[in-house]
Amino acid sequence: MSPIRRLGTSRRWADVVIHGETAYWVEVADDLSLDTHGQIAAVLQQIDATLLAIGSDRTRILQVLIHLADLSDGATLDRLWDAWVPEGHPPVRARVQSGLGGNCRVEMVVTAAVDVETRS
Amino acid sequence: MSPIRRLGTSRRWADVVIHGETAYWVEVADDLSLDTHGQIAAVLQQIDATLLAIGSDRTRILQVLIHLADLSDGATLDRLWDAWVPEGHPPVRARVQSGLGGNCRVEMVVTAAVDVETRS
Amino acid sequence: MSPIRRLGTSRRWADVVIHGETAYWVEVADDLSLDTHGQIAAVLQQIDATLLAIGSDRTRILQVLIHLADLSDGATLDRLWDAWVPEGHPPVRARVQSGLGGNCRVEMVVTAAVDVETRS
Repeated sequence: MSPIRRLGTSRRWADVVIHGETAYWVEVADDLSLDTHGQIAAVLQQIDATLLAIGSDRTRILQVLIHLADLSDGATLDRLWDAWVPEGHPPVRARVQSGLGGNCRVEMVVTAAVDVETRS
Repeated sequence: MSPIRRLGTSRRWADVVIHGETAYWVEVADDLSLDTHGQIAAVLQQIDATLLAIGSDRTRILQVLIHLADLSDGATLDRLWDAWVPEGHPPVRARVQSGLGGNCRVEMVVTAAVDVETRS
Repeated sequence: MSPIRRLGTSRRWADVVIHGETAYWVEVADDLSLDTHGQIAAVLQQIDATLLAIGSDRTRILQVLIHLADLSDGATLDRLWDAWVPEGHPPVRARVQSGLGGNCRVEMVVTAAVDVETRS
């Protein structure tokens, strides 16, 4: 049975949950006072930080489900996204408009591959 | 190759699909005439019942994607959720507003860890 | 460590990403000028094509998260879906209304089981 590892657990959620070779997490901008461009850039940077923390990297992202508060921000998303995704190693991607609440402009649900932790 | 197990198959969907050590399912309240508080409480109870049926438990939930019909129900959700999530073992969680139809107030997409079935 | 395989990589996304025994992909109709019925039928056909390409089949779909641009298309979806899902082997299914943009009427996020690629 594969162990479950968590990073950044709070009362309500974990920042990351890793099961076997699969990591699951949800990313919204740490600073929700940023404008849309700022929030999307922040989320991508935060994904990088999470990948580093779990010993993975951009080439090993499997799936990203992107919720935008307003689909008219799609062009901004795509500009930042295209510059960020590693050529030849993109994930699958869904992009939909959902209600996110408050000033939140973007929320990404990420699934990535990680090595199995062999240390006890 | 890991076997696929299903619980509660109907013409349209399975209640749960298990592949290897990962279980997937979607939960809406069995009784959609309940108010929002009642539906959220019912969904959490139903998740418990499903976990029991597959030999898992709350500490092994990996990810919950929560769709609310109205984000203004977020505080009600969080009160019930915080009392339900096991301290130190929370899943990752996304929470968005989506159209759910009819009187449905909440829908949760759950991923959880299970032991591999070794009986034939 | 399980290898990652991708099919149909573009600058922005992969058509399919396979990690270990799990395949992830997102399907929208190739021809978005079709009406709702046409787009749903197309998406289901495209899922069949993808399953064939990865050496899987309808009985091994684990989860489908369906986004409809308008929940009033739910009856159309269900008619086509019920005729398509293999009896006794349905996936888990979520169905919500989300903003999809342009003329896109339906988007499906699919998870399916595949055999591990043993050829190098």
